[in-house]
Amino acid sequence: MSKEAKIAVLGGGSWATAIVKMLSENLDTVGWYMRSVYAIEHIKRNKHNPNYLSSAELHPEQLDLSDDINEIVDNYDILIFAIPSAFLKGELDKLTVSLKDKVVFSAIKGIVPETGLIVGEHFHDYHSVPFENIGVLTGPCHAEEVAMERLSYLTLACEDEEKAKNLSKYIASRYIKTKISDDIIGTEYAAMLKNIYAIAAGIAHGLGYGDNFQSVLMSNAIREMKRYIKKVHKMKRNINDSAYLGDLLVTGYSVFSRNRMFGNMIGKGYTVKSAMMEMSMVAEGYYATKSAYEINQKNGAKTPIIDAVYNVLYGKKEAKDEFEKLTNRLN
Amino acid sequence: MSKEAKIAVLGGGSWATAIVKMLSENLDTVGWYMRSVYAIEHIKRNKHNPNYLSSAELHPEQLDLSDDINEIVDNYDILIFAIPSAFLKGELDKLTVSLKDKVVFSAIKGIVPETGLIVGEHFHDYHSVPFENIGVLTGPCHAEEVAMERLSYLTLACEDEEKAKNLSKYIASRYIKTKISDDIIGTEYAAMLKNIYAIAAGIAHGLGYGDNFQSVLMSNAIREMKRYIKKVHKMKRNINDSAYLGDLLVTGYSVFSRNRMFGNMIGKGYTVKSAMMEMSMVAEGYYATKSAYEINQKNGAKTPIIDAVYNVLYGKKEAKDEFEKLTNRLN
Repeated sequence: MSKEAKIAVLGGGSWATAIVKMLSENLDTVGWYMRSVYAIEHIKRNKHNPNYLSSAELHPEQLDLSDDINEIVDNYDILIFAIPSAFLKGELDKLTVSLKDKVVFSAIKGIVPETGLIVGEHFHDYHSVPFENIGVLTGPCHAEEVAMERLSYLTLACEDEEKAKNLSKYIASRYIKTKISDDIIGTEYAAMLKNIYAIAAGIAHGLGYGDNFQSVLMSNAIREMKRYIKKVHKMKRNINDSAYLGDLLVTGYSVFSRNRMFGNMIGKGYTVKSAMMEMSMVAEGYYATKSAYEINQKNGAKTPIIDAVYNVLYGKKEAKDEFEKLTNRLN
Repeated sequence: MSKEAKIAVLGGGSWATAIVKMLSENLDTVGWYMRSVYAIEHIKRNKHNPNYLSSAELHPEQLDLSDDINEIVDNYDILIFAIPSAFLKGELDKLTVSLKDKVVFSAIKGIVPETGLIVGEHFHDYHSVPFENIGVLTGPCHAEEVAMERLSYLTLACEDEEKAKNLSKYIASRYIKTKISDDIIGTEYAAMLKNIYAIAAGIAHGLGYGDNFQSVLMSNAIREMKRYIKKVHKMKRNINDSAYLGDLLVTGYSVFSRNRMFGNMIGKGYTVKSAMMEMSMVAEGYYATKSAYEINQKNGAKTPIIDAVYNVLYGKKEAKDEFEKLTNRLN
């Protein structure tokens, strides 16, 4: 045990739980920070997270669980953050220990609402983590299928590819294959944008559009994503790689996606407020839509789908009218 | 009526029926050839095709129905063929009237098994139709959603774009949008290849792979399609346009696709023969797999997915083993 990497997961949701499960295949000890003392006790006693991904069997004897974020950050070298972006800043505000010498991987899809930055930039600007120590862990991956041990492919992106390769050794297993990338900005934006497109897919479905339209929407979405990311960070990338197109598809075509579900309710006529109350959880794409739209006001990529979702969610426009207009901007 | 275009559809299946419905929105008279006298009589009496797409309401007073292919070919200028590729040659062998001066659009996905040619080339080589008179009508489009009048986008491709534009005027309607392309070879191959990928998606599902893998498979499939088509006909095209990626998605993600269903049975352990008998219909992708594989033996594009499907369907390889190998060739 002495020589193995010291890796911890921060967050108590489904995706955090799935990553802990992956790491447990390879490590004797996995650090795990979560807020809820109740959930920690439940995991220790019952070998399952009570609220999220309860189907995944956990091995408490391998888990170093703590509700003290400083203890976990202090004791581990590689930190994988899987806290919803809307709550990230609140958690990081608790830190008294520095992140400066840590390797920080983000498994978060979204933008930190308080700073308007993607997660990597937030860690860099507000916690002095050098870019070569910042990475992204991205899908296409439903946590539920990790629990079922169904084959999934993850992409690990880091400017310093060695760090991505190193972590990938502990992520890969019988049911997880990994791919390395150096496009941390692009993969992070892709992970964020796909949630907006999933909302769009949901709205379309709620309005009564069928599979033919859905496929046109997704085919336009990937082209829009390419244009958008190119403006943010120009580099050679194949937008049809799994981390971009695959991630878009697994979310856009999933009936379990919270973002798609949220969009579906909007399409069926719920107000934003009532859809959120009904779901009793946050659809990350809701916040992503605002950030993505505002960022693009400067960049000027042609983004008819993001514009339409923004107009519906923030511009008080009727989904029906807005999507009718959208159909004429797609091809 | 005197000045309207003289357009006929040839074929009696779902897709033919859907195209007749589209044209009926714009034309006073649509020519329609089908083999079955029984179906013709049924349509005239009951306003529905008895066997295919029965949900579509037809207007017999607008239809010039005939079971004589020569009569229809003789009387119409623009001919839209929607006969399964496996039966096309048999039908064309009945012709005594020349196709030389006709505009021929293919709505057929596949390769003519007897000649190993895509449909456009077959019309050119065996029926002296000049290439500038040959076009392709392609999706993404489930016929079923045309019957329901759900918004769909079709692509019309022709070397002579004016001919595509002309036909598109009669295809477009309240629920159909059209796009023009000059890539007849590429769109036709895409329409053929997507059926092979739908079989692959079905096999994977039958073997128990989940949505995470499915999205990786589709993301690899579109990259493979791009490589494949580039070898066949190099030109500037965006593989993420609806006619390529959209068409792949609508088929690959459809639980109604015959090709996907066929693959699913193979994945679940049916033999090719028993799967075909069980379905009592031909999965076009079955023939496409052989043709596509053989064509690529000369071209040498990297096609792990086509290879795997070929090995399962024609090489007597176990689907389970072959797909396990495939998972290592994807990323």
